[in-house]
Amino acid sequence: MGIVVQKYGGSSVADATGIKRVAQRIVDARRAGNDVVVVVSAMGDTTDELLDLAQQVSPLPAGRELDMLLTAGERISMALLAMAIGNLGQKARSFTGSQAGVITDSAHGKAKIIDVTPGRIERALAEGAVAIVAGFQGVSQDSKDITTLGRGGSDTTAVALAAALEADVCEIYSDVDGVFTADPRIVPTARKRDRISYEEMLEMAACGAKILHLRCVEYARRYSMPIHVRSSFSQRTGTWITDETEVDLMEQAIIAGVAHDRSEAKITVVGVPDKVGEAARIFEALADAQINLDMIVQNVSAAATNLTDISFTLPRADGQTAMAALAKIQAEVGYDSLLYDDQIGKVSLIGAGMRSHPGVTAKFFAGLAAAGVNIEMISTSEIRISVIVDEDQVDAAVSATHTAFDLDSDEVEAVVYGGTGR
Amino acid sequence: MGIVVQKYGGSSVADATGIKRVAQRIVDARRAGNDVVVVVSAMGDTTDELLDLAQQVSPLPAGRELDMLLTAGERISMALLAMAIGNLGQKARSFTGSQAGVITDSAHGKAKIIDVTPGRIERALAEGAVAIVAGFQGVSQDSKDITTLGRGGSDTTAVALAAALEADVCEIYSDVDGVFTADPRIVPTARKRDRISYEEMLEMAACGAKILHLRCVEYARRYSMPIHVRSSFSQRTGTWITDETEVDLMEQAIIAGVAHDRSEAKITVVGVPDKVGEAARIFEALADAQINLDMIVQNVSAAATNLTDISFTLPRADGQTAMAALAKIQAEVGYDSLLYDDQIGKVSLIGAGMRSHPGVTAKFFAGLAAAGVNIEMISTSEIRISVIVDEDQVDAAVSATHTAFDLDSDEVEAVVYGGTGR
Repeated sequence: MGIVVQKYGGSSVADATGIKRVAQRIVDARRAGNDVVVVVSAMGDTTDELLDLAQQVSPLPAGRELDMLLTAGERISMALLAMAIGNLGQKARSFTGSQAGVITDSAHGKAKIIDVTPGRIERALAEGAVAIVAGFQGVSQDSKDITTLGRGGSDTTAVALAAALEADVCEIYSDVDGVFTADPRIVPTARKRDRISYEEMLEMAACGAKILHLRCVEYARRYSMPIHVRSSFSQRTGTWITDETEVDLMEQAIIAGVAHDRSEAKITVVGVPDKVGEAARIFEALADAQINLDMIVQNVSAAATNLTDISFTLPRADGQTAMAALAKIQAEVGYDSLLYDDQIGKVSLIGAGMRSHPGVTAKFFAGLAAAGVNIEMISTSEIRISVIVDEDQVDAAVSATHTAFDLDSDEVEAVVYGGTGR
Repeated sequence: MGIVVQKYGGSSVADATGIKRVAQRIVDARRAGNDVVVVVSAMGDTTDELLDLAQQVSPLPAGRELDMLLTAGERISMALLAMAIGNLGQKARSFTGSQAGVITDSAHGKAKIIDVTPGRIERALAEGAVAIVAGFQGVSQDSKDITTLGRGGSDTTAVALAAALEADVCEIYSDVDGVFTADPRIVPTARKRDRISYEEMLEMAACGAKILHLRCVEYARRYSMPIHVRSSFSQRTGTWITDETEVDLMEQAIIAGVAHDRSEAKITVVGVPDKVGEAARIFEALADAQINLDMIVQNVSAAATNLTDISFTLPRADGQTAMAALAKIQAEVGYDSLLYDDQIGKVSLIGAGMRSHPGVTAKFFAGLAAAGVNIEMISTSEIRISVIVDEDQVDAAVSATHTAFDLDSDEVEAVVYGGTGR
């Protein structure tokens, strides 16, 4: 049989009961004849508790030491999980990211995986053991320091290991059943998708769906590693994320799902002289401040004044840094003023099928209009349309869109997929 | 200036306040011009909490996984300590046992240090950083697995690192002021020693003084590494443990101190046929059961029956295992019965000076007799006399002995040293 990589999140191993439940699932998979590699996150709130301790001793801890601290979380959960599996009569051995051969760059707190050399994992499998690997962590190529991969890091560890081991599948377990057509907390009639393509999942992740992190999906697409997103609390099949060609054409729907994101803010630079290089100067200043922008809109300039407005969205956490960076270049660029708005939300419609179906945009906007939702900004890609709306109107916009495209229909022919989980 | 190795125990870094206090001490030592290497234990009760978690998932966890789990404790404390030092404006870098080059054998839970290759520590010092090293842990030479050193392991880490780095001194910090002539909780007039020899400290440790673990003192003696035992809660000088020749002859007293131990039990094998090989058979059976014996006494056999009794002491925790091992060979050896007594205590009088002072034993026993203490067993070494007494009489025996040898005298000429701390 083949190799199965399973990843369990913190909510699945929050306490001893959870660890024992997960251990039983792993032993079942092993006894079904698979070689099993498990990637595990820190237990429940461990990471937050460690961060709290760090804050108590230093307001601005060194990245190297923060990574050393946080990696203690997975060390605890992986050792406990290996013990619990051993207690069920199955050999198990735990490995740190470093021991598992997860080689990264040196960017503490947001390191990128450069290479995976899982020699010790392969030896453990050859000896009949289940290998338990700490998620979210690695070792830097240059300085041999312990690093962490940043948000969603454990999912990326799992996919990277699965690719390096040429596993059959990478199963990502959490407390939700799979990928839905919209957040079920907002749209109770949202439906679980059986399959979704990497491209659609990438757009979903980029648009605020928290099921999987962007980087993990990118990694899976690059190596064509099938991901099976499912719940560790049930035996149900979840959602398979695969190459687009493997998504049954019969199943191909116009719309994969509706995603939303409340984590962004909007900045408008008012009255920018409309001449060559001004916009570039603004975005240089933001890039120097290490700020990732999302949507960017520039209006045509008013003929009378030759001035234009530039709006963009960015993570709310970076809002004040960006405002400060822009204020510094006001004299140089000669703009009038800055507007800052963090009461916004982004609603996105995603689907590979929209490539060949005109009229999707019109239907989307008509649905929003009927629900009384005002559109502040628009941005599109080949398989996505995103709008910025008032934060208070996000739920209404998601529901209206879900209905407009019949995603909550009970009819079998209306096959839909995608959406945000939790 | 030279290299100073400091070791802080769990009680010194029990919380954020403790960590910040210790950080300040370390920065002071660095700013006084020393290269500083710090060995740190897990915070307060962390190790017990992790053991409790392990028990919840497995009654008999694998040693390899238990070591992986427990080493998370030092990982947390060392990272926090490095952050706290950084917050005081001093560069600091934390290292796991493995990163610090602490190479051990593969005996999980009680690994022995084979070699120390502190290249990364030396580089950190060369760059002006304080190096923080996780105590109690290493990496096995053969399998590159994480190991723990067992009880007192952090002290041993500190001394081994100090030896490898050719440090000037190894400072062991705890919540007591140094080595006392007896446990101050039993003898309030007990006095702190300024100096004590390795040999005396070894006997103290073997006789139940909990200040330093036996292995750590052995290591220091082998490498002639001076140890300074002191409190992290005060600036007072503690007790120096050095070569005997360095202990000022003026200061050389007959008695170093009085130690006691309540952790042992006594087994008597009654009616053993007094012929060649019977005793050997008994001790073989105990050795096969991995039991370390302490005192052993065999009476001359009664002429009429040609039977003898053999008594020995051992850790209470091993009592039932030993009884079971002996029961199995009753028919083979042909002894009458077994007696088990765990209501005993050991009181020991230690001092290099007793080599050249006859009459110490007589004075010791006279003091015990005057206090009404009954002696059950006796064992001696060149610089120690130990007796087994009823557990209820341990305090009385310690006090009586302390007084008999004028250890609690206020007069300056009665210089004494040694004793148990906590």
